[in-house]
Amino acid sequence: MLGAIEAGGTKFVCAVGNEDGQMLERIQIPTEIPEKTIPMVIEFFKNYKVRALGIGSFGPLDLNEKSDTYGYITSTPKPGWGNFPFVETMKKALNVPVAFDTDVNAAVWGEFLFGAGKGFNCLYITVGTGIGAGAVIGGKRLHGLSHPEMGHIFLRRHPKDKFEGFCPYHKDCLEGLASGPSIKKRWGIKGEDLLEDHPAWELEIHYLAQALLQYILILSPEKIIMGGGVMKQSHLFPSIHSEVKRLSKGFLTLPPSEIYIVAPGLGDDSGILGALMLAKEINVGNLTN
Amino acid sequence: MLGAIEAGGTKFVCAVGNEDGQMLERIQIPTEIPEKTIPMVIEFFKNYKVRALGIGSFGPLDLNEKSDTYGYITSTPKPGWGNFPFVETMKKALNVPVAFDTDVNAAVWGEFLFGAGKGFNCLYITVGTGIGAGAVIGGKRLHGLSHPEMGHIFLRRHPKDKFEGFCPYHKDCLEGLASGPSIKKRWGIKGEDLLEDHPAWELEIHYLAQALLQYILILSPEKIIMGGGVMKQSHLFPSIHSEVKRLSKGFLTLPPSEIYIVAPGLGDDSGILGALMLAKEINVGNLTN
Ligand SMILES: Nc1ncnc2c1ncn2[C@@H]1O[C@H](COP(=O)(O)OP(=O)(O)O)[C@@H](O)[C@H]1O
Ligand SMILES: Nc1ncnc2c1ncn2[C@@H]1O[C@H](COP(=O)(O)OP(=O)(O)O)[C@@H](O)[C@H]1O
Ligand SMILES: [Zn+2]
Ligand SMILES: [Zn+2]
Repeated sequence: MLGAIEAGGTKFVCAVGNEDGQMLERIQIPTEIPEKTIPMVIEFFKNYKVRALGIGSFGPLDLNEKSDTYGYITSTPKPGWGNFPFVETMKKALNVPVAFDTDVNAAVWGEFLFGAGKGFNCLYITVGTGIGAGAVIGGKRLHGLSHPEMGHIFLRRHPKDKFEGFCPYHKDCLEGLASGPSIKKRWGIKGEDLLEDHPAWELEIHYLAQALLQYILILSPEKIIMGGGVMKQSHLFPSIHSEVKRLSKGFLTLPPSEIYIVAPGLGDDSGILGALMLAKEINVGNLTN
Repeated sequence: MLGAIEAGGTKFVCAVGNEDGQMLERIQIPTEIPEKTIPMVIEFFKNYKVRALGIGSFGPLDLNEKSDTYGYITSTPKPGWGNFPFVETMKKALNVPVAFDTDVNAAVWGEFLFGAGKGFNCLYITVGTGIGAGAVIGGKRLHGLSHPEMGHIFLRRHPKDKFEGFCPYHKDCLEGLASGPSIKKRWGIKGEDLLEDHPAWELEIHYLAQALLQYILILSPEKIIMGGGVMKQSHLFPSIHSEVKRLSKGFLTLPPSEIYIVAPGLGDDSGILGALMLAKEINVGNLTN
């Protein structure tokens, strides 16, 4: 039996399952301060005999195994979670080995193994409270100097957009212009309450297409999977595809929209299934990837 | 004995060498039409008993082994080279297996194996007649849907820059704003003839730093190697590093300039040595990467 945690800003999903990705039990726990949330998480796993745990977590994270703070959530503004030794805490409590990666890397891993990205060099982008992305290239999750921060790339302004942007670091980076909260802030209305013909979507399409174009030129993914709350607006998918084409000025030959820029094949389970498969890697002795 | 070709827009470098990357002989042949250049290339290799040939070529290339036009230079405006079956031609003439990749992927491969990128997830960027980049991630050269086209990403305009840009596809993409010819076109003077305090460099630093920032956020390379004619201006290196930091607004922790953004360790030989090592891969039966 394997254990998995998808640690998000609003909720923790905890699950146990087998090596084939079948989940046997799962629960959700609200994300409060660690002193409240973590004991409930541990309690859940104590009921099962898990031999390894995989975690996909919100960040920023320290993923450098040579670092003193490996396995920590580092500089998050989220109350109580700054400098939280996530891996160490779980290891001690459950006495099992722990695999650790970002939430988006867990999600892209799930999609690569079982979902819409099966067998492809693929990119998973979440457009929700924040914007983040993870990639699988050559069968491996993309890591480097640190984990990528694709949500914070800079874009060109849409000429109609005067909104200053909502990223605490950069104001008008991708996340600052196109996340769920930035839509709310710009229009005074939540994304889920905007009609399909609202001008918000023209900007959203333009910014997400610009970001995708940069990702394509730099990473050349074979499949782009877009998830998160904002992407529940399914009319965005074909429009983003057309806008990428328009912006590239005939420079790129893209596969058709329906097979290239797609929703997650696993629905809301990409992250938790990916985390479960992180735990599986430990068993085959492949901890370093 | 292995053979290698670095096929560039102005010259072909041909070499023979051994599996350890020692070159035994090399020549340069001007790039004219294929009917003139290729027979001279073949002539050179006929003097040696090479058992495999590696090619790093200017593009765009078809690198999809399932494609009918695999191994072709495809849509280049360079007279005579459009739809040129490079791999097939060399295979027939020399009767040896041929490995094929982009010029920048050959260069990053050389630097990864023997140069400044040894052992790192690394990025090689050339800033010359064009701008292009290749990456090695997890010990593999980065390929995807097609090869990346990192030279054509979009940037924000420097407020002082009114130049319309010089890319035939996009006008003011990175290549259109920061390549050698775009410097010449904007200022009426070639890069090599501009003094260190010329305002050209402020723009150049700004655009190259913006590009690097995008690459870092998306790929997170551990080492960035910058080559090509324009980077002979060695004062650019520390300035680009500072500008990346400034643009990232404290969001990124970068290694110090001298170890992070560096000149090629192999000088002008990154490409030809990388191409030689492409040939070596064939021998160990690893043709698909
Ligand atoms: N159907 C919808 N259409 C547009 N925006 C939505 C929709 N549903 C949720 N959102 C927005 O997505 C954000 C939440 O993203 P979500 O991915 O659900 O959670 P999180 O990113 O916190 O894990 C909120 O800003 C919300 O307004
Ligand atoms: N020392 C230099 N400083 C600035 N620009 C240079 C310098 N040397 C060459 N260049 C510019 O670099 C371009 C040629 O790039 P190079 O890398 O040498 O060749 P290519 O890209 O054709 O292989 C030209 O536009 C030239 O003006
Ligand atoms: Zn930002
Ligand atoms: Zn361009």
